[in-house]
Amino acid sequence: MESDQRAAAPTRRAGSGQPRRADAERNTAAILAAAAGCFARDPQASMTEIASAAGVGRVTLYAHFPSREALLGELMDRALREVAAAVAAQHLDRSPADRALRTLLRSSWHLLDRNLRMLHAARRALPSETVEERHTDVLAAVEQLITRGQDEGAFRTDLPAHWLVTSVYTLILAAGDQVESGRFSSAEALSALEATVDSALRPA
Amino acid sequence: MESDQRAAAPTRRAGSGQPRRADAERNTAAILAAAAGCFARDPQASMTEIASAAGVGRVTLYAHFPSREALLGELMDRALREVAAAVAAQHLDRSPADRALRTLLRSSWHLLDRNLRMLHAARRALPSETVEERHTDVLAAVEQLITRGQDEGAFRTDLPAHWLVTSVYTLILAAGDQVESGRFSSAEALSALEATVDSALRPA
Repeated sequence: MESDQRAAAPTRRAGSGQPRRADAERNTAAILAAAAGCFARDPQASMTEIASAAGVGRVTLYAHFPSREALLGELMDRALREVAAAVAAQHLDRSPADRALRTLLRSSWHLLDRNLRMLHAARRALPSETVEERHTDVLAAVEQLITRGQDEGAFRTDLPAHWLVTSVYTLILAAGDQVESGRFSSAEALSALEATVDSALRPA
Repeated sequence: MESDQRAAAPTRRAGSGQPRRADAERNTAAILAAAAGCFARDPQASMTEIASAAGVGRVTLYAHFPSREALLGELMDRALREVAAAVAAQHLDRSPADRALRTLLRSSWHLLDRNLRMLHAARRALPSETVEERHTDVLAAVEQLITRGQDEGAFRTDLPAHWLVTSVYTLILAAGDQVESGRFSSAEALSALEATVDSALRPA
């Protein structure tokens, strides 16, 4: 058996229920913060390393996240909720579609750039269907924007919106990979990404 | 123990060595053909299903390919060697770079399209670094072509060739995914791919 103080503590305080839940929330927060840090250093980081960085035992870690995939999935979901919140805060519907898309591209890029290795690890660990499913909300926002841009004459109409969305999504990931592999600085990647998306979407 | 006639046969004929090697080659060919068929129907196909489709036992299958990953890796390598051979046969260096790239795009597309599910399974089963490594030769040919096109004034020079190569590569895979998910027919995907690559690479 392993010693696991944080896991043991709430059990001893059972009764009110409150401290137990507070402990669990503190543990979840500690685990997610530690995992984000571990994956940022090393996309291969193991559950053992993460437990140790979070200061919890493996039993507690697995009680919160039954697998490395579940942990990566939760980190990816949080990153995507952050993009969605940033997008909502920018009221993209109030500016012309092409300007709104540039704003959305920059927000998504900055978030991807900050979480590059974690997201790389998540994309490798999770089935690609799951990864795509998790992006549904964000991609729906992009599709709405692109469709509006097609109506406004800012984006090409010879190709369907779903393909333009896929092209943008796939180019963002490719730009991230170029930074991850050291072929681009983050600034170079963003500028190449913006130039390429701009050409790919502009009307002929 | 499982019965495994093809595996047992060569042992009985040991001595000359020739029939043994011929049997092994026949088995390899049967396994690869069966595996290609199985993965085309179902990217999740198991080693057991593949052994049965190839008419060999699991022992023989594992003697040839120690893992599902090894089998998918070999299938991917064969597909890529086919692209490389098609590219070499077309003497792309003799035509202008933009026309040569269109030819290369079409050959790559037809090969991807024929092997969509197998390659999808391979990309999921193999670490992404390995997948990229396997594409090194084909991507080098694309990079040479794009660099020549930049010199000839056919492709934009405001972005580095390595990024244009990545964009093309990533858009080909994205087009394949659209067919795989049923959002595009193969013809629609190729035409969207050509239009997008054309816009993304054209000088501003």
